[in-house]
Amino acid sequence: MATLGELAAWVGGRLTGNPDLEVKGVAPIDSAGEGEITFLSNPKYFKRLSGCRASAIILPPGVECPIPAIVSPNPYLAFAKILTALACPSPEPKGVMAGSIVSPSAVLGESVTIHPGCVVGDQVRIGDGVVLHPNVVLYEGVVIGDHSLLHAGVVVRERCRIGSHVIIQPSAVIGGDGFGFAPDGAGYFKIPQVGIVIVEDGVEIGAGTCIDRATLGVTRIGKGTKIDNLVQVAHNVVIGENTVIVSQVGIAGSTEIGNHCTLGGQVAVAGHLKIGDNVMLGARSGVSGNLEPNQILSGAPVMPHRQFLKAATTFSHLPEMRRELTQLQNRMRELEQQLEEREKLS
Amino acid sequence: MATLGELAAWVGGRLTGNPDLEVKGVAPIDSAGEGEITFLSNPKYFKRLSGCRASAIILPPGVECPIPAIVSPNPYLAFAKILTALACPSPEPKGVMAGSIVSPSAVLGESVTIHPGCVVGDQVRIGDGVVLHPNVVLYEGVVIGDHSLLHAGVVVRERCRIGSHVIIQPSAVIGGDGFGFAPDGAGYFKIPQVGIVIVEDGVEIGAGTCIDRATLGVTRIGKGTKIDNLVQVAHNVVIGENTVIVSQVGIAGSTEIGNHCTLGGQVAVAGHLKIGDNVMLGARSGVSGNLEPNQILSGAPVMPHRQFLKAATTFSHLPEMRRELTQLQNRMRELEQQLEEREKLS
Amino acid sequence: MATLGELAAWVGGRLTGNPDLEVKGVAPIDSAGEGEITFLSNPKYFKRLSGCRASAIILPPGVECPIPAIVSPNPYLAFAKILTALACPSPEPKGVMAGSIVSPSAVLGESVTIHPGCVVGDQVRIGDGVVLHPNVVLYEGVVIGDHSLLHAGVVVRERCRIGSHVIIQPSAVIGGDGFGFAPDGAGYFKIPQVGIVIVEDGVEIGAGTCIDRATLGVTRIGKGTKIDNLVQVAHNVVIGENTVIVSQVGIAGSTEIGNHCTLGGQVAVAGHLKIGDNVMLGARSGVSGNLEPNQILSGAPVMPHRQFLKAATTFSHLPEMRRELTQLQNRMRELEQQLEEREKLS
Repeated sequence: MATLGELAAWVGGRLTGNPDLEVKGVAPIDSAGEGEITFLSNPKYFKRLSGCRASAIILPPGVECPIPAIVSPNPYLAFAKILTALACPSPEPKGVMAGSIVSPSAVLGESVTIHPGCVVGDQVRIGDGVVLHPNVVLYEGVVIGDHSLLHAGVVVRERCRIGSHVIIQPSAVIGGDGFGFAPDGAGYFKIPQVGIVIVEDGVEIGAGTCIDRATLGVTRIGKGTKIDNLVQVAHNVVIGENTVIVSQVGIAGSTEIGNHCTLGGQVAVAGHLKIGDNVMLGARSGVSGNLEPNQILSGAPVMPHRQFLKAATTFSHLPEMRRELTQLQNRMRELEQQLEEREKLS
Repeated sequence: MATLGELAAWVGGRLTGNPDLEVKGVAPIDSAGEGEITFLSNPKYFKRLSGCRASAIILPPGVECPIPAIVSPNPYLAFAKILTALACPSPEPKGVMAGSIVSPSAVLGESVTIHPGCVVGDQVRIGDGVVLHPNVVLYEGVVIGDHSLLHAGVVVRERCRIGSHVIIQPSAVIGGDGFGFAPDGAGYFKIPQVGIVIVEDGVEIGAGTCIDRATLGVTRIGKGTKIDNLVQVAHNVVIGENTVIVSQVGIAGSTEIGNHCTLGGQVAVAGHLKIGDNVMLGARSGVSGNLEPNQILSGAPVMPHRQFLKAATTFSHLPEMRRELTQLQNRMRELEQQLEEREKLS
Repeated sequence: MATLGELAAWVGGRLTGNPDLEVKGVAPIDSAGEGEITFLSNPKYFKRLSGCRASAIILPPGVECPIPAIVSPNPYLAFAKILTALACPSPEPKGVMAGSIVSPSAVLGESVTIHPGCVVGDQVRIGDGVVLHPNVVLYEGVVIGDHSLLHAGVVVRERCRIGSHVIIQPSAVIGGDGFGFAPDGAGYFKIPQVGIVIVEDGVEIGAGTCIDRATLGVTRIGKGTKIDNLVQVAHNVVIGENTVIVSQVGIAGSTEIGNHCTLGGQVAVAGHLKIGDNVMLGARSGVSGNLEPNQILSGAPVMPHRQFLKAATTFSHLPEMRRELTQLQNRMRELEQQLEEREKLS
């Protein structure tokens, strides 16, 4: 619960309406009612304003509005902040709960919560305010920075280092062995994977996502980068800062990805490549070469996104194109023969 | 163990042969022997009947058969039912087993089994006959309907609701945070995901599959829908009833999928779309627009499945088509010049 | 720690330099220093030799080298072996640790380590030297061969059999139900999956990978086969020996894959197919028919890899090809008309 005035101040927005109005929740525009705040950022949906029964709304500048409003140049961000303030209470820390197993050599910060079923290995260091949900496993020597949150079933293998304010969704695996084998004639000899994974501050990692440890050295996820569910990050990959990686992407070994990139769902990136900063890759792109910064690309191999859209829609015409090509060849042959015959006649 | 007569009655099939014959197991036609029943539904395999050493067989009508048979218009369904009867004993409920941690505020139905390593949070409600295999984690406020079965390592996050007769394979994650961030200039601000997931009655969810909770509101999996392994269902997605989603499919946020649809393996569906009822999408289709009901589609972007098959097989001819096109252009230029010269001459 | 002479003998390499030199670690050529050994196998990187500050190096024959070296025809394999010797100490077995739950009817080999949080079911048999990391779950009747290593959160369901010297990365699922349902009019009736999975000796299985149990019979992973992360192997699939399957591959039900195959990342293979020995499939290939042995293929449908590369790079020219085709058709029509008119005139 907060007043509208408090919320406007909190997001740095301009207030129109009663600052003492009490707001107790956030809801989508179609279902918001008494005591709730909603938001609109896409002009496409402005017409929904008329039927809105929310007590207040977050809006971009320049929209006429019959109800109390917080006007913000970035309504989506303001919405996210207000939702955080209203809907995400920080639970009291509960310490090391019964049913968890913490090595005596582990070092725990203040105000931690370690739920039942967690197993914290030797020499692990856990920062202040860290929450480990049930059944998290930290192998020996793992480091977790302050205020990080690991959901149920997350596994972090030996010596990997997780930064501060990191969030890891359930069942993600950090530091599994990289996929490296040396052919020895008949079969394959396992190459030990003795490097680690470093996940920097402010990163979020999705459910079921797997980030492999380096063969030697480090697999690194840069500050503020956000990774969705079921993503595969192979050994020795380096991902820059504030990069967004959507679900089911696969990144092969030793590839480097820049800052502020966006990889759409199911994208595949081959190994040993360099992808520059600010590269956007459309869903399911397949990258097999280095990429210069500041591009929007799609396809496999990648091409400018607009070109890809055209090529992709032309694809369905391929059989008809082939038929027309054959017809043209026949007509051409006929014409050529016709001309040749005339040549002879003349 | 059952008699052939009992099995025929159980599946509503017509019996030919001794009803007192004892059947103790089910096996494929090539390996079935004494005391076992097998089945044939595909006419392609009818010739295997001659070598069959099973004691009985499930068959469609109109097939001549030397051994005792249960004749059913749907032999595959009859097989599934007989296999269930013969091979799937319901184990005795074991209650709350030692080594599991159940909150005192959780409410448990009758005849439940909660295996070691499970963690059941505050205010959780669990229906009658529910089985939680080892290391299942239910966050606070989760509801599980009667006779549902959660395999080892499944995580259901706070307040999500699972219906009755639901089966969830190992390590699936229900209710992980949706992937939502608001750009705040330098990086990204997390949008809290305060909605839930509702999984309706009779749904099956595969191993490692991730179904994200809604930002606000509900991510919903409709009654009887079957989802395979390693599928990604993003926040606020709504899937209808009796829809089948094969392995490694990815469905982006806020998309609605109808009833009785089938999505082949590795299909990708973009966000904020509507897919009508009875839509079949071939493996690896990429959907980027709304789809009317009652279609069989493939490709990316999707097109009628038969058209896709033709286009896909033409694809390998692209380099030769391009070469021929260039040759045609050259021949055309020559012809045109030839004609022009004649024009001048005449 | 070992001497250079010991290491050369261990990998069967020829030694140049002081055999008593002490080597304490392995590092990449750019960062290796005093007391460390590095390696070079790719001639492309030989120029890096000059700046190398390692104490020793593993090299192919015929390279001039200023520092002590182990010369081996397979430097990559020699590196893997030396890394194993220097960097992978075998920890002392710890027995059944507090916080794990082992059924009294389970049979354990010698020198096992069962970490906290593991749940070992009835009639399970575990071989000598097996390590189960925290929170591994083995359902009833599972068999694990000697010296196998199961990482945290791995689930092996009832009666599945894991060979010797198998490594399973965190959160992999062995023996989840295959995805089989019989339509019963309104919806789907679950076909019980009563078969098992057999994982043969020397196999490695990646994090989050799911290998489904057979409906009847066996899903089999052959000796020495290596499977990466987040791979889907459906029911009744049979994979041969020493085959390599890269991340995010999906293999549909009842398909057989030969020995010594390689499936690149995100490959999809349809069900009920046979793929011969020594088939290499490029990343994201889509296989919809049987494949003869000894081929290198890519694309969907698959074609020879070189042909695919050409077709894929031609794809971006599709819109321009279509435009040119239309232009050619117009020019052709004009020419034809021109000729026809002349015909009339003459």
